[in-house]
Amino acid sequence: MAILFNIVILAAGRGTRMMSDLPKVLHPLAGRPMLAHLLDTARSLSPQQMCVVYGYGGEQVPQALAAGDVVWALQAEQHGTGHAVMQAVPHLTDADVTLILYGDVPLTMSATMQALVTIAAQDELALLTVNLPDPTGYGRIVRDEQGQVTRIVEHKDADAAIRQIQEVNTGLMAVPSKRLATWLAQLNNDNAQSEYYLTDIIAMAVADAVAVQTCQPAAIWETMGVNSKVQLAELERLHQHHVAQQLMIQGVTLLDPARIDVRGQLTCGRDVSIDIGCIFEGAVKLADGVSVGAHCVLRNVEIGTGTQIQPYSHLVDAVVGEHNHIGPYARLRPGTTLAADVHVGNFVEIKNSQIDVGSKINHLSYVGDSTVGKQVNIGAGTITCNYDGANKFRTVIEDNAFIGSDTQLVAPVTVGKGATIGAGSTITKDAPAGELTLSRSKQLTITGWQRPVKKAKG
Amino acid sequence: MAILFNIVILAAGRGTRMMSDLPKVLHPLAGRPMLAHLLDTARSLSPQQMCVVYGYGGEQVPQALAAGDVVWALQAEQHGTGHAVMQAVPHLTDADVTLILYGDVPLTMSATMQALVTIAAQDELALLTVNLPDPTGYGRIVRDEQGQVTRIVEHKDADAAIRQIQEVNTGLMAVPSKRLATWLAQLNNDNAQSEYYLTDIIAMAVADAVAVQTCQPAAIWETMGVNSKVQLAELERLHQHHVAQQLMIQGVTLLDPARIDVRGQLTCGRDVSIDIGCIFEGAVKLADGVSVGAHCVLRNVEIGTGTQIQPYSHLVDAVVGEHNHIGPYARLRPGTTLAADVHVGNFVEIKNSQIDVGSKINHLSYVGDSTVGKQVNIGAGTITCNYDGANKFRTVIEDNAFIGSDTQLVAPVTVGKGATIGAGSTITKDAPAGELTLSRSKQLTITGWQRPVKKAKG
Amino acid sequence: MAILFNIVILAAGRGTRMMSDLPKVLHPLAGRPMLAHLLDTARSLSPQQMCVVYGYGGEQVPQALAAGDVVWALQAEQHGTGHAVMQAVPHLTDADVTLILYGDVPLTMSATMQALVTIAAQDELALLTVNLPDPTGYGRIVRDEQGQVTRIVEHKDADAAIRQIQEVNTGLMAVPSKRLATWLAQLNNDNAQSEYYLTDIIAMAVADAVAVQTCQPAAIWETMGVNSKVQLAELERLHQHHVAQQLMIQGVTLLDPARIDVRGQLTCGRDVSIDIGCIFEGAVKLADGVSVGAHCVLRNVEIGTGTQIQPYSHLVDAVVGEHNHIGPYARLRPGTTLAADVHVGNFVEIKNSQIDVGSKINHLSYVGDSTVGKQVNIGAGTITCNYDGANKFRTVIEDNAFIGSDTQLVAPVTVGKGATIGAGSTITKDAPAGELTLSRSKQLTITGWQRPVKKAKG
Repeated sequence: MAILFNIVILAAGRGTRMMSDLPKVLHPLAGRPMLAHLLDTARSLSPQQMCVVYGYGGEQVPQALAAGDVVWALQAEQHGTGHAVMQAVPHLTDADVTLILYGDVPLTMSATMQALVTIAAQDELALLTVNLPDPTGYGRIVRDEQGQVTRIVEHKDADAAIRQIQEVNTGLMAVPSKRLATWLAQLNNDNAQSEYYLTDIIAMAVADAVAVQTCQPAAIWETMGVNSKVQLAELERLHQHHVAQQLMIQGVTLLDPARIDVRGQLTCGRDVSIDIGCIFEGAVKLADGVSVGAHCVLRNVEIGTGTQIQPYSHLVDAVVGEHNHIGPYARLRPGTTLAADVHVGNFVEIKNSQIDVGSKINHLSYVGDSTVGKQVNIGAGTITCNYDGANKFRTVIEDNAFIGSDTQLVAPVTVGKGATIGAGSTITKDAPAGELTLSRSKQLTITGWQRPVKKAKG
Repeated sequence: MAILFNIVILAAGRGTRMMSDLPKVLHPLAGRPMLAHLLDTARSLSPQQMCVVYGYGGEQVPQALAAGDVVWALQAEQHGTGHAVMQAVPHLTDADVTLILYGDVPLTMSATMQALVTIAAQDELALLTVNLPDPTGYGRIVRDEQGQVTRIVEHKDADAAIRQIQEVNTGLMAVPSKRLATWLAQLNNDNAQSEYYLTDIIAMAVADAVAVQTCQPAAIWETMGVNSKVQLAELERLHQHHVAQQLMIQGVTLLDPARIDVRGQLTCGRDVSIDIGCIFEGAVKLADGVSVGAHCVLRNVEIGTGTQIQPYSHLVDAVVGEHNHIGPYARLRPGTTLAADVHVGNFVEIKNSQIDVGSKINHLSYVGDSTVGKQVNIGAGTITCNYDGANKFRTVIEDNAFIGSDTQLVAPVTVGKGATIGAGSTITKDAPAGELTLSRSKQLTITGWQRPVKKAKG
Repeated sequence: MAILFNIVILAAGRGTRMMSDLPKVLHPLAGRPMLAHLLDTARSLSPQQMCVVYGYGGEQVPQALAAGDVVWALQAEQHGTGHAVMQAVPHLTDADVTLILYGDVPLTMSATMQALVTIAAQDELALLTVNLPDPTGYGRIVRDEQGQVTRIVEHKDADAAIRQIQEVNTGLMAVPSKRLATWLAQLNNDNAQSEYYLTDIIAMAVADAVAVQTCQPAAIWETMGVNSKVQLAELERLHQHHVAQQLMIQGVTLLDPARIDVRGQLTCGRDVSIDIGCIFEGAVKLADGVSVGAHCVLRNVEIGTGTQIQPYSHLVDAVVGEHNHIGPYARLRPGTTLAADVHVGNFVEIKNSQIDVGSKINHLSYVGDSTVGKQVNIGAGTITCNYDGANKFRTVIEDNAFIGSDTQLVAPVTVGKGATIGAGSTITKDAPAGELTLSRSKQLTITGWQRPVKKAKG
């Protein structure tokens, strides 16, 4: 029998120590807002409702992460975690359990969320704890002789014995929804900060003889919060380390697991190798046998079987076929599709173009808004003049054409099948198939011409 | 009442284990000679006098770091630290206190120096100590029951009990100047190395009932010396780690704090983000909202608000305005100034040129010694021919000009306001404003021409 | 008296956890198959015979690492380490000692191998052990009161007391050859896996009163095996760390020892400096005073004294002379030879060409199949058109020539001594020495021409 549960995510805080104008939960981790990570994980559990409590930064947060399955509860002024949860309650539908998460604790995993919900479904208060080697500053979990949680003691209130306790409260919990409503109503703000603390409901559970049952996450970083750029960087590194380990377990060769950054979803086939300093953003798929050279950046690309990408290549929104040779220093821009056995070499930029099987663009070229056929050879320094200052036009180069070096193809223009273009030509009209077309001035030698000499200064 | 003090820096050693021809204190840390770091920090305390004792490498050291406020004392032969300080004394003006630093301990911070001086001003010997987890090899600080320092015992002379002591001598000290003179005169070289050890004055202080008062630095690396390239790299990393932490505390987003190198002064506005593998040299200023992509190198540049720099960009001695789009693979060389909203794209080199608001140089171009107006579009493959083999000349491109692809602008030359240059032109004379100018040969098709075939190899 | 010994390397395993189609021992570490490292080290000891036991992947392993001094023994089915050694024995010549190594333990060093052989030459069983902080999972070395090894107890069979033992069996051993034959014959497979365990011979040695004498390697990583990509990456990093330390001890300045990758043999002169993110592959020699900028890739190159290589340079199979300035973004491809004082700048590709003293190719050029003389200046955007679609031809540029920007040199072609080529020329015939040669159309201005306007989309 499925458990019906809601998820409340507290995301109203400013994050003063982030020293930023951006609300804290929008700061990116692995390329996406922290809150987006949490929403994705929460979503995977199919809750009845997800309610995000927002506040600092106003509508920025709902606007950045608008989604049909998220309800937004405004906490106009921040009066503590308990107060934040109170703002969410009116927005929630009926459900047995309420799971409470934190927008600045972005990497809580679904198994951990599920474990909390499962406990709370038994009419218990489910509390996530971790054991820290150095628990200084955290609220300690105090248990009785039977191991039952009796209370949480904040670090500042703890005596020496309690400070020895390494098990601490993470703040994440799942609560039977009806009890949550009751307990929230009993919260008060009689404390130095005049805030309503969600943690206080644990004492209420004990008082009401509701068992407080704890569970622990698979990794401590699931519970780590971000309050500063230092902590953001720490969590980024822990996450990247985890991603790298997963890739290696799947069989990917990483030349240095500490020097790969995956900011999105990297999917790899068999016998893929990734050299140092590479960045993968968005959705990237590398088929079997792909190797990615050092210092490459790939964003939203698919790379076909056996393709070799050499160092310093920068590929964005492109599809690359099988057995291509790409780079070094190759740049593929959005809308580029390369078929099989294509070669793209150094200092070559391709944009919004389709290049068919076996074609080569090996040196110092700009190919934009072009359709290039099979077995075409595009010489060094070729430029498609696709822009007249106002509009963009397409260039078509048909199969087996040979474009001499330093040619400008002034679009719209078509180079026919098997046509040859002489080096240094400016092609403004269609070049017929099978023929040699060129524009060229006569080579002259000016005898007696004197080379300039260095001018005296002053 | 200000304390009058002198600073003596010992910098005469060879550093045999550096395996280098360069005197040890000239080896760079974070892009500058180790001694330069120390001089800068020392200078910030406004001493009466800074005297550097030099020796190995002869005049190389004074020449490399010549400055009006530094006095140089030659230690022609090296006979120990006490001997080194003796060489400095005749160069010093009257001052209450003498602070002794080491040129190969480059990262001692000003607060630490100040603390030593303040102690010594009370007619005490101020000694800098640190507590090391593993003190093996270092001189231990031995104290009496009242906690007073009674002596320093070298590791080799220490019994098991003394070897348990983790507090060790760093060698850095501040001494009442008059007492220093007295004690130096009492030093002897009756030891295996026949050297005069500065450390021996501590025993003299105890004997003379001058209190030896210790203080400790904020970080152990302030006292770490460099005797080998291994230690140099260790200190470089500790320093870079410290710089990265400071940047993050100020609010800079570092995608990986272990992969940024700052070799000079990096000043950042709010909401700056720096991706992996970047290097900052000299004085670099990044305004609010700047983002620097992966693997960029920036040296002595200023970057305006909101400018985005894409990967592999290399910017040196340049000023970049607001909301520019730079890179990937953009190179800005000395003397480049970009106004607001300028786009510089891939495989573009700009040198000694001013580019005005809204202009675009997006692909495969060389723009040197040029003045480019507003809203100019420079097509792919454009080259300013600024050098005739002997002299360099300027190119002027006025507002709203459109330079067709693969144009050569043979300087000195001016392209007028709103002029258009046809693709593939060689422009040797001024192009009038508002008109189309080009140089172009007629496009011809040679019918019946046969493409070459692969020659048989003989 | 030299010891006669054979080496048996076990390399038949599949390595299922590698998740790869490649046999485990062929996976590269530092750019070369793991087994190749071990063979090289083994070879340096001049054994009588080296016999590799192969199996998984069939002939792939012998084919990949074929060598005159290696004998290959097929282990068609894998029945344990003892069974593997049995396959080798028939292939071995007579020798006093047999040293047993593992193809997936690639970094065992020669001193360690030598130590084992030397022990076994005294008719003892030589066993390599290490002390691990956490020995969980490993076979413990149990000794009697005299310190003699009495047995090895596998972790699963160990009681609490034995599990406290930190000294573990590495599996590497050297055995008197005659005894090995006897003991192998006594092995049985009466165990859960029905395998023949080589380790069982240790008990036989004890039973036969042959001393089991242990030795330990200089570093634990010498004994680390690779069973997964995670372990491969760990060993890669340990190896790279070791290489970096060695380079620094020799005096090389590494800006970050954690960010250099040496995959082959890097030989450095005095006062060499290497910035972050560089990769060295194959045989690379850097002469005195060479500096290599950030993010460079060098493979099989020699770099002359004092040459400066700027960031993002990619050099393969090239020879670079003294005092060159290379990069940034310079690409040297196979067959490139640069003499002294050559400048190769940004976005320049050179292939199969010789460039003589003092020549400059500073910007956006492709020079292929060319012979360039002394003091030649090649302007920006110059392209040697060496390929006609079927054959490649050479370009010759003699001393002191000046090639104007954006010139195409259509090979075969010669530019004579001191010749000048005008910017934008297509040179199809030889250009005479000392003269100005160009091909150029008249510059025209078309008055009244209207620039295109943005089309409405419709």
